[in-house]
Amino acid sequence: MSYRAPLKDMLFDLEHLANIGQIAQIPGFEDAGLETAQAVLEECAKFNEGVLAPLNVDGDKNPSSWKDGEVTTTPGFADAYKQYAEGGWQGLQHPADAGGQGLPKVIGAACVEMLNSANLSFALCPLLTDGAIEALLTAGSDELKATYLEKLVSGEWTGTMNLTEPQAGSDLALVRTRAEPQPDGSYKVFGTKIFITYGEHDMADNIVHLVLARVSGAPEGVKGISLFVVPKFLVNKDGSRGARNDVHCVSIEHKMGIKASPTAVLQYGDHGGAIGYLVGQENRGLEYMFIMMNAARYAVGVQGIAIAERAYQKAVAYAKDRVQSRPVDGSINASAAIIHHPDVKRMLMTMRAHVEGCRAMASVAAAAYDAAHHHPDADVRQQNQAFYEFLVPLVKGYSTEMSLDVTSLGVQVHGGMGFIEETGAAQYYRDAKILTIYEGTTAIQANDLVGRKTARDGGQVARAIAAQIEKTEADLARRDSAAARAVHKRLVAARKAFLDVVDFVAGQTKASPNAVFAGSVPYLLLAGNLVAGWQLARSLLAAEDLAAKGQDRAFMEAKIATARFYADHILSKAQGTRDAIVEGAESVTALPVDAY
Amino acid sequence: MSYRAPLKDMLFDLEHLANIGQIAQIPGFEDAGLETAQAVLEECAKFNEGVLAPLNVDGDKNPSSWKDGEVTTTPGFADAYKQYAEGGWQGLQHPADAGGQGLPKVIGAACVEMLNSANLSFALCPLLTDGAIEALLTAGSDELKATYLEKLVSGEWTGTMNLTEPQAGSDLALVRTRAEPQPDGSYKVFGTKIFITYGEHDMADNIVHLVLARVSGAPEGVKGISLFVVPKFLVNKDGSRGARNDVHCVSIEHKMGIKASPTAVLQYGDHGGAIGYLVGQENRGLEYMFIMMNAARYAVGVQGIAIAERAYQKAVAYAKDRVQSRPVDGSINASAAIIHHPDVKRMLMTMRAHVEGCRAMASVAAAAYDAAHHHPDADVRQQNQAFYEFLVPLVKGYSTEMSLDVTSLGVQVHGGMGFIEETGAAQYYRDAKILTIYEGTTAIQANDLVGRKTARDGGQVARAIAAQIEKTEADLARRDSAAARAVHKRLVAARKAFLDVVDFVAGQTKASPNAVFAGSVPYLLLAGNLVAGWQLARSLLAAEDLAAKGQDRAFMEAKIATARFYADHILSKAQGTRDAIVEGAESVTALPVDAY
Repeated sequence: MSYRAPLKDMLFDLEHLANIGQIAQIPGFEDAGLETAQAVLEECAKFNEGVLAPLNVDGDKNPSSWKDGEVTTTPGFADAYKQYAEGGWQGLQHPADAGGQGLPKVIGAACVEMLNSANLSFALCPLLTDGAIEALLTAGSDELKATYLEKLVSGEWTGTMNLTEPQAGSDLALVRTRAEPQPDGSYKVFGTKIFITYGEHDMADNIVHLVLARVSGAPEGVKGISLFVVPKFLVNKDGSRGARNDVHCVSIEHKMGIKASPTAVLQYGDHGGAIGYLVGQENRGLEYMFIMMNAARYAVGVQGIAIAERAYQKAVAYAKDRVQSRPVDGSINASAAIIHHPDVKRMLMTMRAHVEGCRAMASVAAAAYDAAHHHPDADVRQQNQAFYEFLVPLVKGYSTEMSLDVTSLGVQVHGGMGFIEETGAAQYYRDAKILTIYEGTTAIQANDLVGRKTARDGGQVARAIAAQIEKTEADLARRDSAAARAVHKRLVAARKAFLDVVDFVAGQTKASPNAVFAGSVPYLLLAGNLVAGWQLARSLLAAEDLAAKGQDRAFMEAKIATARFYADHILSKAQGTRDAIVEGAESVTALPVDAY
Repeated sequence: MSYRAPLKDMLFDLEHLANIGQIAQIPGFEDAGLETAQAVLEECAKFNEGVLAPLNVDGDKNPSSWKDGEVTTTPGFADAYKQYAEGGWQGLQHPADAGGQGLPKVIGAACVEMLNSANLSFALCPLLTDGAIEALLTAGSDELKATYLEKLVSGEWTGTMNLTEPQAGSDLALVRTRAEPQPDGSYKVFGTKIFITYGEHDMADNIVHLVLARVSGAPEGVKGISLFVVPKFLVNKDGSRGARNDVHCVSIEHKMGIKASPTAVLQYGDHGGAIGYLVGQENRGLEYMFIMMNAARYAVGVQGIAIAERAYQKAVAYAKDRVQSRPVDGSINASAAIIHHPDVKRMLMTMRAHVEGCRAMASVAAAAYDAAHHHPDADVRQQNQAFYEFLVPLVKGYSTEMSLDVTSLGVQVHGGMGFIEETGAAQYYRDAKILTIYEGTTAIQANDLVGRKTARDGGQVARAIAAQIEKTEADLARRDSAAARAVHKRLVAARKAFLDVVDFVAGQTKASPNAVFAGSVPYLLLAGNLVAGWQLARSLLAAEDLAAKGQDRAFMEAKIATARFYADHILSKAQGTRDAIVEGAESVTALPVDAY
C-alpha cells in the first residue's frame, strides 16, 4: 500500500490536544465525539488508501490535457470523483440543511489531510468546491443557494475561485474583469482569469465559477470588486442543466507539479458576455472572497502536512529496505538497512517531527474554528475566533514551508534513486512547491500575521497565546523526565524569542514598516515553529500520563521522543530567527534596487 | 541575455580573498596573476553567456534520448561541445605537458562556475572528463597516459566515472563488477554500472570509462577494488580509434532534473568481456577513485554556487519587472516593482548572500589547493593541503544544500509564474536537487568531515581555522562601522559555537559514534556557514578599505551590505545548530526502528 492514513496520530490529537470531547458538548455536535471521529476517519482512510492513493502517480505521468476548449483529466480521476461524491465526502463539514453531514472541522480537517496525502492533485477539486460552498453560505441569496448549494454539497457539480489575472496576482486591486448589469438583474461578465484550478474538467456535469469582477462605474482598487457566480452551464428553472455559458478554457498550464490538476486560463464573454449572478452586494466581493480564501488557506496548510506525511512514509519504507554500509557504532557487523544510520534517522525524525507538529497545530486550530462558530457562549466564540485567525497564516505558511524541507529530505533519503522519477519521491518535491505560493504566498500570509493579526490589536492575541504556552511550561516543569526538561528549556526560550518579536512588530509596524515587514516571513516561521512545538509539548505531557497508565506504550514513547526531537532540533532555531528579525532588519533593505 | 557572468565578484574574490597575487609568485604560475585571470574570465564569460546559456532550456525541454544503445543529446549540444573543446576550455587547469594551459585552480574554478551557471547539464561532461584526467595523471602508466591523456585534455574524447552498481551506492564495499586478467596484461571486465553521467553520448568520438571492479581473488570489501580504463572504442597502436569495445548503454534514466545530461546504465562484458586496462596497482582502485572524487566533489560544490547564481539573476530580473502592490512604507503611491517590497528584498538578499559567501569559500579553497600542490615550501604545502581537505566537504556539502534553498526562493520570488515550466525558474529547482546527492550525499561529506577531517587529528585543523577567524574578528573589532560591529558579533558567536562542536566531535567520535554522527550534517552546515560568513567578513574589511579609497564605491557598498546581511540572517543560525548537535544527539536515535 503506497499510503496508510496515520489514524492513531490523528485520533491522539483529536482526543488530547483538540479536546474533541468539548466540541461534542456544543449543541449540534452532540454526535461528533471521539467514536464518531474514529468511525469517519476509518471509513475515510479506506477510501483514500484504496481509491485515490493509487491514482497519484498516474496523475503525474498522465496529466490533464486540453483540446479545443475541453479538458480531459487523468484516466481514473472521473470515476474516482464519482465515488468521492457518492460517498458523501464533499458534504462532510457542510450543514445538514444543505445536504451535508454537519461534522465539525476538527474531524473534517483530518479527512482533508488524508485526501491530500492520497492525491494532492485530485484533492484540489473538492477543496475549491468547499470554498464556493462557504461563499454561497455566507453571502449568497436564497435563490443562488437554492440553485447551487445542494449540487455543490453533493459533489454533483464542482466549484472554482477566480481571482488572478495576468496583471493581478497578489495584488487584487489590479483586477480588470468587468461585469455589466442586465435588465433582468443578472450581469454580463467579460475578462480573462488565469491560474484557475479545475477551471475546466470532465469530472462533473457543471462547474460553478466564483468570479471577482468590477461593475461598471465601481470605485478603483479593492473597494470596487464584486463577486459573481458564473456557471459553466446555465441552470434551468427546474434545476436542470441549461445552455452553455460564455466562459471558455483557452489553455491549461504546463506545471512543475500537481500535473493532474488542470490550471486553466478562462476567457469570459468573448461571445457576447458570460451570464453571472451577483453574490451578496456590489463592491463587497473581496470580503466574501476572503471567506473562501480563509477556508482555502487553512486547507492548503493541511495540504502541506498531507504531502509531508506521504513523503515521510515513502522515505521510511525505503530506509527500512535499502541495505548500505555498516552502522557506525559497530552494532551490526554487516551492511545494514540505512535506517540504522544516525543521519538517516535524523532526516526521518526531522520529517516526522515537522509533520506531527504541524498536524497538532492544525488540529487545535480546527477545534478553535468549531468553537468560534458554534459555541453557545459569545465570549468563548470570540476568544476562539481570535485564536483561529491568528493560527490560519501559521497553518498555511509554516506547514507549507516545512513541506518543502520534508519533501526535499524525502528525496535525499532515497539517494540517487530519489532523483529518478519512477521512484516517486521526486513527485512530492515537485508537487509541494506550489503550496507556499497559491492561496497567498508565504509573504502574503506573513503580511496578514503582521498587519491584521498582530499590529492591529497591539499584539494582544499573540501575548495571550504566549501566556497559554507558559502554562504548558509550568506543567513541563513539574515533570522529572529528561524529555520534559529538554522540551521545557527550548519552549521557554522560543516563547521568549517570540515575545521579543511580537513587541518589535506591535511597536514598530507604523513607525518602521520596512523594518517590520523585512522580518514578516521569519516572524511567521518563528510563530509557527513555536505553536507546533508547543502542541508537541502538550502531546508529551499527555503521552507521559498515558504511558504511565500503560496505554499503548510504544506509541506514547514514540510521541515523547518525537516531541523531544522537535524541541532539540527545530524549536532550537527560534532564538536565531528572533535575532535576525529584531537585530537584522536594516541589512534586508540596505542595498539600493540598482545594486541588485 | 539569460545569464551574465559575475566577473566583478569573481575578480574581487580572486584579488582580495584568494590572494591571487601570492599564487602568481609560485613557480609555474608566474603568468597567472590578476591580469591573466581577468582576460581568461572575460573570454570564458563570452563563451558561456553566448553559446551555452541559451541551450540550457532546450536541454530541459528536449533531453538526451536513448535508442538501440545510442544516446542522442539535445540538438545543439554536440556543436557546442565542439566549440568548447576547440576553445581549449577542457585543458584550462591541466598541465601544459599534457596539452593543457596549466592555469591554477583558483582561475579554473571561476570558469567552472560560469560553465555550470550557463548549462549545468552540459557542464557535467567536462566535469567528468576532468576527473578521468586527474586519475590518469596520478596513477596511470606511461602507456595509458600516452594513449588517453592528450585526447582527454583536448576534449576530443570524454571521460566517465563508473562507481555505482544497483546494490552499491554510498557503500562501495558492495561493488561486484569483476575483471579477469588476460595473458596480454589487459583485463576482461564484466558487470553492470548505473548512474553513469555521460556514460554514452554523441558529442565526442570516444568515451574513456574509469571503472571500479574486483580482480578475481581480490580481498572482500573496499580493499579488493581496482580501477580500470575501459574505452568505448579500443585504441590502435597509432592512436587512432579501433574496434568497438564490449560496453553498452542499455538505458538512460528519466530524471527530475539535469535532463540533458544522459545518466546511463552500462553493461560491461555481455558479449565476451569488455577490454580494460589496470590503472596503477591492483586493489588500490578506491584510493585512485578518491582523487577523481575529490576533484569532482569540489566541482559539484561549485555547481551549487553556479545554479544558485543563475537562479538569483533570474529572480532579480523578474522582481525588477513584475509590478504588484504598493510599498508598505508609502514611498511610492502606486503599484511598484516587487523588488521594492521588503520580503522580496529579504529573499533576494538571502540568495545573494548565500551565493557570494559560498563563492568566496570556494575561491579560497581553490587557492589553498594551488599552494598545496605547487608551493616550493613543504610546510606551506602541507598547511594548505590540510586547509583544502577540510574545506572540500564544506564546499560540496554546504554550497549544494544552500543551492536548494536558493533555487526554492528563486521559484518563490516568481510567485505562481515560478511553478509554470515555461518561466524557467522551476528548472533550477529541479536541477539543483541532484547536487546534494551525487559524488557523495551530504551525509557522506559529513562523514568525511567528522571522521577524516576532524576526529582523526583531534580537531587540530578545525581549531587552526578558528584561530584564523579570530584574527579576522580582531580586524573587525578595530573598525567603527555599524556593519563591522554587526558582523563581528555574529562571527564571534558562530566561531564559538563551532569550537564547541569541534570539541564534541573530536572528543566523542570514538566513545559515542551515534551521538556524533547524529549531528554530522548539522556540523557540516555549521562549519560551512561559518567559513562562508568568515570570508564575507574578510570581504567587508577589504571593501571598506577600497570604498574609503573611492574605488568602485557602489560595488564595495553592496559587498558590505551583503556581508552584513549574511551575518545577521544566516550566520545567526549557528548557535541553534550548535545546540541541536551538542545537546540534541540523544533524541535523534531514541526512536526504535520498529516505531517509525
